[in-house]
Amino acid sequence: MSPREPRFSGVVPPLVTPLTSDGEVDAPSLERLVEFLVEAGVTGLFALGSSGEAAFLTDARRDRALEVVVRAAAGRVPVLAGCIETTTARVIERAEVAAKLGADATVVTAPFYTRIHPLEIDRHFRAVRAAVDLPMFAYDVPVSVHTKLAVDQVLALAADGVIDGLKDSSGDDVGFRQVVLGAAGLPGFSALTGHEVVVDAMMLAGADGAVPGLGNVDPHGYVRLIRACAEGRWADAKAEQDRLTRLFRIVDAASPETAGGSTRGIGAFKTALALRGVIASGAVSPPMRELTADETRTVASHLDEAGLL
Amino acid sequence: MSPREPRFSGVVPPLVTPLTSDGEVDAPSLERLVEFLVEAGVTGLFALGSSGEAAFLTDARRDRALEVVVRAAAGRVPVLAGCIETTTARVIERAEVAAKLGADATVVTAPFYTRIHPLEIDRHFRAVRAAVDLPMFAYDVPVSVHTKLAVDQVLALAADGVIDGLKDSSGDDVGFRQVVLGAAGLPGFSALTGHEVVVDAMMLAGADGAVPGLGNVDPHGYVRLIRACAEGRWADAKAEQDRLTRLFRIVDAASPETAGGSTRGIGAFKTALALRGVIASGAVSPPMRELTADETRTVASHLDEAGLL
Amino acid sequence: MSPREPRFSGVVPPLVTPLTSDGEVDAPSLERLVEFLVEAGVTGLFALGSSGEAAFLTDARRDRALEVVVRAAAGRVPVLAGCIETTTARVIERAEVAAKLGADATVVTAPFYTRIHPLEIDRHFRAVRAAVDLPMFAYDVPVSVHTKLAVDQVLALAADGVIDGLKDSSGDDVGFRQVVLGAAGLPGFSALTGHEVVVDAMMLAGADGAVPGLGNVDPHGYVRLIRACAEGRWADAKAEQDRLTRLFRIVDAASPETAGGSTRGIGAFKTALALRGVIASGAVSPPMRELTADETRTVASHLDEAGLL
Amino acid sequence: MSPREPRFSGVVPPLVTPLTSDGEVDAPSLERLVEFLVEAGVTGLFALGSSGEAAFLTDARRDRALEVVVRAAAGRVPVLAGCIETTTARVIERAEVAAKLGADATVVTAPFYTRIHPLEIDRHFRAVRAAVDLPMFAYDVPVSVHTKLAVDQVLALAADGVIDGLKDSSGDDVGFRQVVLGAAGLPGFSALTGHEVVVDAMMLAGADGAVPGLGNVDPHGYVRLIRACAEGRWADAKAEQDRLTRLFRIVDAASPETAGGSTRGIGAFKTALALRGVIASGAVSPPMRELTADETRTVASHLDEAGLL
Repeated sequence: MSPREPRFSGVVPPLVTPLTSDGEVDAPSLERLVEFLVEAGVTGLFALGSSGEAAFLTDARRDRALEVVVRAAAGRVPVLAGCIETTTARVIERAEVAAKLGADATVVTAPFYTRIHPLEIDRHFRAVRAAVDLPMFAYDVPVSVHTKLAVDQVLALAADGVIDGLKDSSGDDVGFRQVVLGAAGLPGFSALTGHEVVVDAMMLAGADGAVPGLGNVDPHGYVRLIRACAEGRWADAKAEQDRLTRLFRIVDAASPETAGGSTRGIGAFKTALALRGVIASGAVSPPMRELTADETRTVASHLDEAGLL
Repeated sequence: MSPREPRFSGVVPPLVTPLTSDGEVDAPSLERLVEFLVEAGVTGLFALGSSGEAAFLTDARRDRALEVVVRAAAGRVPVLAGCIETTTARVIERAEVAAKLGADATVVTAPFYTRIHPLEIDRHFRAVRAAVDLPMFAYDVPVSVHTKLAVDQVLALAADGVIDGLKDSSGDDVGFRQVVLGAAGLPGFSALTGHEVVVDAMMLAGADGAVPGLGNVDPHGYVRLIRACAEGRWADAKAEQDRLTRLFRIVDAASPETAGGSTRGIGAFKTALALRGVIASGAVSPPMRELTADETRTVASHLDEAGLL
Repeated sequence: MSPREPRFSGVVPPLVTPLTSDGEVDAPSLERLVEFLVEAGVTGLFALGSSGEAAFLTDARRDRALEVVVRAAAGRVPVLAGCIETTTARVIERAEVAAKLGADATVVTAPFYTRIHPLEIDRHFRAVRAAVDLPMFAYDVPVSVHTKLAVDQVLALAADGVIDGLKDSSGDDVGFRQVVLGAAGLPGFSALTGHEVVVDAMMLAGADGAVPGLGNVDPHGYVRLIRACAEGRWADAKAEQDRLTRLFRIVDAASPETAGGSTRGIGAFKTALALRGVIASGAVSPPMRELTADETRTVASHLDEAGLL
Repeated sequence: MSPREPRFSGVVPPLVTPLTSDGEVDAPSLERLVEFLVEAGVTGLFALGSSGEAAFLTDARRDRALEVVVRAAAGRVPVLAGCIETTTARVIERAEVAAKLGADATVVTAPFYTRIHPLEIDRHFRAVRAAVDLPMFAYDVPVSVHTKLAVDQVLALAADGVIDGLKDSSGDDVGFRQVVLGAAGLPGFSALTGHEVVVDAMMLAGADGAVPGLGNVDPHGYVRLIRACAEGRWADAKAEQDRLTRLFRIVDAASPETAGGSTRGIGAFKTALALRGVIASGAVSPPMRELTADETRTVASHLDEAGLL
């Protein structure tokens, strides 16, 4: 729909990071995951995002995961690297590593833990981009960083060439729409939605693509969905999205009475991938917990219903 | 798109309440507004919502406004009446008045001001519905009541016939999608989005209609938009929505440094309607303030750009 | 400790409103409660606050409760009347009733339900005070109104004679301390803390008194506590406060898994008063629920431990 | 006041980390700060807390700062080391470094960035303590981590010997009081308040000491304050606290319209220390900014008024 020619578009799943039982990166599983996604037709890979347990991995494990993804992608699709750190100097360190390991872009949030001012958020993005010469996505994820990027702030950073795109996980579709409209004159800008159950709607609204956590589990579905959107087959897109929305209920397999949101989402994605034979296990980083046998059965039944087992 | 036959659908604007300079309901202006909207083809009228300044009007003024709207609508379209009160007994009083004055449905939020439990929210809706025999919408508006209705809670109330629809102003499109999917087997249920800049997207996602505050100002645009959606002309729908999204910038005419969100929205809608000659003035209830001359010029220039002056 | 001569000071309990089984004001119980408190030595009565279920009572029931309290107090101590409403015009209506029924002061919060700006909050307090000639307390209760009054805002309103005191239920003791310091030159200003478990600490910090919900249940304890503070017997004050803090665990009798915060607090206070024979029953307004038999036993055991049965 | 014999008590300032103009740790300034504090009579030093810019420093700079503090303290007072990281494995890495560099205790928050469950918070603290054999403080700082530690959770961790103390920066004095009461039977447990303007009040409530950011600037004042509390001279304590509360207005020198809360606090403390000749400059980490000349003059005038220049 867009007159723009965004540099990044389509389906860019935020890869989970498969782990061994002692918490190390399970490289063979991660390689299989990359292969699974690339063969399904995704147009990019986002490593070390929230779904990739970036906040749970030591620096050494983060490096290892990114290294494996870049090598396995082998230039077939671009690799975006999350540089999830509290403030500027720490993010720059991660962005330098991302550049060295061969990532094609960085993904950077507003500062967190600290009490921050919009002017400081602006300086933050500018300083990171000035320090590391890679395309950069602003990652708007208030549920994690507890600050919302303002529409005008995103557009100003985009107009100045500081950011090359937005990964929107804010749940604020009003703001997302306004960013998309405001970026109409910025040809290379990429507006990607992070909400896996409204991809059809956001594509109609002008998104360039999606970063769906559930895309780890059913990349073929998201590739079909985005294709239907691109071809203006909106009823087909909606039908595919409705199927995926039902599948998304795997994140309710673990009870909110015993598991936090990160456990419920990441645990479900990993469990589903293990059930589908892509990765070796559903192991997650402490203090999260792996899904129980009962919860795993629930995931399996949703996969079965979706025709994915 | 929906296999359901919702009782309420299409464009149901949340009417502003025109006021005289001493804060009374400006009945002639309100009658003109009703006429303006009905002639434009809206399919319902929502009186005494947040945009209608329900929280600012004394009971006597609320009664007067509803009376005027019901009489002016004259049965051509149904009238939904907001019953915005802190807790159960107070809401029931308002719902009884709504029934007496001839409203076709009530619109009820979760309790507010108090510290509430989901079980108590459930009891609240059931008690109101049991007390007053009118169709009832649950109004999910966490920005005002500071509680979010859960998907399962909405679906349980719908399945039990307690609520006949949802007016969703939560900004949580993920949850809205899940309600729409979950309500597939509830024929009469109406899922209406309250977010005026993503109506195309939410209609694609399965909404039955919209309750757009901006629909006061440009009802013709929303009627065209909904019609395009109904006929599967999604590119047309998107183009209309994009135009309306640009028009929505009138709510930024008043500065956030001197005006709260309610002033900025309601003040802009009223100012635009005054500029369009529908109502007599942009007067709002204290402690809100009317838009300044400068701010009014900004609104006028947006109207002009949208071809509405 | 204070060089000021505040107009209101000491122990000013926020009265619960005893109810009959059909939700009406139980006047005989309310009269007994007033007598119980006045005989214990409290220096004021706060009717129709959050603990008084102001948000749950219809206007008729609010009027009735205030009428009973004023008559029962019979001028022995001043009566403060909560005027808890969403915005200015509605608050003024309640303040006019309070004046007519003989209250000695009003207690007014920032607007709620609406999205408000600090300048609008300022106009709100000024408009209410201009409309009704009674001393007025600003009631800072962000847990209910979701806005925090700023220190400078409170001090400006106080300096201009708009407010005569602050009832602080914000939990922000840093801000409270700054208000107390800033009000040093305002002789009649009253700074009252609403947090029943830190009264000793806040009195040391310069508070003029307390509005303790738990003061319904054990007014004698709070009277002793405040007297110890006034006489500089801080170790005695702390010992009394520690006893009352343990007693405050009655609010944990009802489980947070089945009851909201309002139910847990108000339900516990009423149940304790019924167990002590002051009021007839622990009935609360819907959608709250009365405490169960088990929960009542928990309350009884805490009362017993505190020597109150 | 306490029957307990807490292992850590008194005044434990959270040290700022002086920086050179290129962002490195200014070791000579940091050594002078340690000397200034120890000579003033503080009973402990908390390095790498929020005031220490832990969230802004790279790992190398964190290590350097801790190394300097431990060496300069030279065993005269214990050194607590903040281990501020998103989740378990990353915290353990920091705690191992702290142990290696000679810290006497760790200070650990709940996980942040992730969406966490109370059970996961519990596992987090237990895993960190199991991995590193140092006394551990739970650091309750919801303004940064956006989770509040529950009273029962803190007491359970304390009873099991997982944590040796609480550094409370939650602003929830009600909860703090309940922790203090609940910990009465845990002899070694230390309850320290992080709120510099209510230290007298919290000491009366049973705190064992304070971690005042402002204690960097006026350690002598806090030492006098704590001594007055310990000796039961509460009126003296209050007078000293009132003086310090006035001094605390230095954090308002930078405007909230151009600076975030971290800049305003840390920037003011550093500027004051530079003005007092203790450290070389007021430099802070990006994206924070140093105080302007005007703002510095404001700080200076407050210092002057407090007799500190």
